[in-house]
Amino acid sequence: MTFSVNETHDPNVRSWVESANDADTDFPIQNLPFGVFRRSGSNEPPRIGVAIGDQILDLAACSTNGLLTGISEAVARTCREPALNGLMALGPSAASDLRRALHSMLTEGSAQRAAAAKNLTPIANAELFVPAHIGGYTDFYASIHHATNVGRLFRPENPLLPNYKHVPIAYHGRASSIVVSGTPVVRPGGQQRSGENPPAYAPSRRLDYELEAGLYIGTGNALGSRIPIAEANQHIFGFCLVNDWSARDIQAWEYQPLGPFLGKNFATTVSPWVVTAEALAPFRASACPRPKEDPKPLPYLEAETDQQHGALSIELEVLIATAKMREQRSARCRLSRVNFNTMYWTPAQMIAHHASNGCNLEPGDLLASGTVSGPTPDSLGSLLEISKGGREAVTLPNGEMRTFLEDGDEIILCGRCSAPGYRSIGFGECRGVIIPARI
Amino acid sequence: MTFSVNETHDPNVRSWVESANDADTDFPIQNLPFGVFRRSGSNEPPRIGVAIGDQILDLAACSTNGLLTGISEAVARTCREPALNGLMALGPSAASDLRRALHSMLTEGSAQRAAAAKNLTPIANAELFVPAHIGGYTDFYASIHHATNVGRLFRPENPLLPNYKHVPIAYHGRASSIVVSGTPVVRPGGQQRSGENPPAYAPSRRLDYELEAGLYIGTGNALGSRIPIAEANQHIFGFCLVNDWSARDIQAWEYQPLGPFLGKNFATTVSPWVVTAEALAPFRASACPRPKEDPKPLPYLEAETDQQHGALSIELEVLIATAKMREQRSARCRLSRVNFNTMYWTPAQMIAHHASNGCNLEPGDLLASGTVSGPTPDSLGSLLEISKGGREAVTLPNGEMRTFLEDGDEIILCGRCSAPGYRSIGFGECRGVIIPARI
Repeated sequence: MTFSVNETHDPNVRSWVESANDADTDFPIQNLPFGVFRRSGSNEPPRIGVAIGDQILDLAACSTNGLLTGISEAVARTCREPALNGLMALGPSAASDLRRALHSMLTEGSAQRAAAAKNLTPIANAELFVPAHIGGYTDFYASIHHATNVGRLFRPENPLLPNYKHVPIAYHGRASSIVVSGTPVVRPGGQQRSGENPPAYAPSRRLDYELEAGLYIGTGNALGSRIPIAEANQHIFGFCLVNDWSARDIQAWEYQPLGPFLGKNFATTVSPWVVTAEALAPFRASACPRPKEDPKPLPYLEAETDQQHGALSIELEVLIATAKMREQRSARCRLSRVNFNTMYWTPAQMIAHHASNGCNLEPGDLLASGTVSGPTPDSLGSLLEISKGGREAVTLPNGEMRTFLEDGDEIILCGRCSAPGYRSIGFGECRGVIIPARI
Repeated sequence: MTFSVNETHDPNVRSWVESANDADTDFPIQNLPFGVFRRSGSNEPPRIGVAIGDQILDLAACSTNGLLTGISEAVARTCREPALNGLMALGPSAASDLRRALHSMLTEGSAQRAAAAKNLTPIANAELFVPAHIGGYTDFYASIHHATNVGRLFRPENPLLPNYKHVPIAYHGRASSIVVSGTPVVRPGGQQRSGENPPAYAPSRRLDYELEAGLYIGTGNALGSRIPIAEANQHIFGFCLVNDWSARDIQAWEYQPLGPFLGKNFATTVSPWVVTAEALAPFRASACPRPKEDPKPLPYLEAETDQQHGALSIELEVLIATAKMREQRSARCRLSRVNFNTMYWTPAQMIAHHASNGCNLEPGDLLASGTVSGPTPDSLGSLLEISKGGREAVTLPNGEMRTFLEDGDEIILCGRCSAPGYRSIGFGECRGVIIPARI
């Protein structure tokens, strides 16, 4: 199945959870993203919930109490698990059934209101977790603007490598160090080399963020089998925001010939809520148009439907709050804004490519897009690009300057989808503060 | 603790399992490697066992039946789990206690003989599994001979990159496609480019093996903390053999700038038995001597004890059996033989480096060495090196020629440790046969 717009996207439907009807909430009843939480300060095992306004509906409790009507026992059972992998593995129609049940339960006037209301916890009173067991984490490089900007720093005359327009380039990241939004990030130490000096081990001085979107795999594929591009979107459970923190000095010295390693794997932050593929149906977009002179994607990477509406329109933002800004109680400051529909490769192309050699994807695997950068100076997804490799500092509203991140800097990623005739939905924040190196 | 030689290494001890006393067994009572198995054709859940001669002792049954005397209940409980992660997490003294208990139980004259004998299954009648849940798989590049040989194919005048002698280079591999010895390997398809032709999607024609040794992490480290080099060996549970199958044509086209991806992640084969760090104590060796002109490792990578006996002497072999050879019932043929003590970086250096930025290692993580190649033409760990990039075919005894692998070729990796005054121990085989592409 491919997700299409249905009654769960009706912008006129309101929820009895009043905060879900606020114009600026990320979580109106048209969103219903899944996450894993427990009440702050409790020692309860983590459980699955859905965000609605400023509340979390406890799906484990709803499942136990028989509130999930009209869905199969298999789906109800996965709602009682401590991570989303079981639900993810059941595939798109299971997620869709559950979405309809929740939509109905949370709609203004629902007969289930009284029973369901007992299972609400304010998000502000909850501890959130990485929502799935992530077995495999793959990071792509799908923004041609980012690839060009970074390439230009190293090869001004020839920024884009010859494979870029043919291959959705990617590498394997580290799953163990994926943390949920809010987890402080320790400034990494590492071996680095400055100019012709001998290499030395020291705290990174070129610590950066990368603005990315990520997708969670729903149903996987067997080892040795492929995923045809026309079926690839059926393997997506949902999307989140990803900050792929990067130590540019460590990365620069280590990355030849086998790619990034310690420059990346000290921490990757994900937003806690998984916005489902179905919730995003109204915000599908045509793939970024390729200039006529660009090569046509090979057949295993091309499907008409994917070109027509395989991309996603998500307005992404990076905000910074330095320690000084927090002290001064001044507003956090935007570092960039960019739409996810500027990517050169679509999510379906990433998935079809990943499985094109028979590599098995599994429920809960995270595929991140790579840094999302647009074509303009205010749409760059990393400080490396904004500061032109550290050569030009950016001045913040309070006069502070940055080429790379300082201890105490907090980076906040946001994402929001809007389309005429539809209710806007958001991703919630993906945030992390840099704390000093332990060296 | 650091493992030292003790009574479990006494070469004069014999087992009541007669096959364990054969001179050429890989699994005498001095070895006692751990694995996960079930009886062939049964639907039993996988369980932990230890190899002894041509038998497997069922540790789940031994634990349930109270045969594991003198060990804590915590250790006995991990023996009833379906993978080794629990035992690995308990650290070196737990593994050592269990080893002593098993050594005593299996020694000739043991009072436990009758009870224990009921829990034996012939290895030939068992299905073996990947022995741990591998959360993170990292592949190093620790053979300077391999790095030089491969570099020479691309940069004849300057084969070794400037970082090599400073940084234990590594990249993240794919854990989901790690398979146990005996699993057929489907020839991958993938995008590749031949000369100036346009890129195309086709079955790999440059399919290769890579001879590697791997180590399983025992106790891990917390995110943000490091592992001092002097303590790194305490984090090793044991070792295995690894075949890091590689599609050289896919790899060559995709790997810039982020490293290997689909050229590697279609399959990685591990041997089923984990030879413990303690079993390997008699075979510790001094680190490969560095030429005087080479840089001294940075302090975080250097420990006197590691230089003195942080390496391992393991004789590794690659054998091939083509379909024709199997048809002709002719003996399999050796492609190379090399000692693991030729590596430029030690296991402890790999671990200390991996955690040097605060990356968290977890019980069951697999760190592979990278291709093990020695300095001589008969000690090269890949066909890429043997055939000089596919330019010089190797002729097998029956007249067949190979630059890369053909369908039906079976590759068998073996490893064996010997030292004067000690019983030789082995790793068992790590094998895989290439089956045709599904395209």
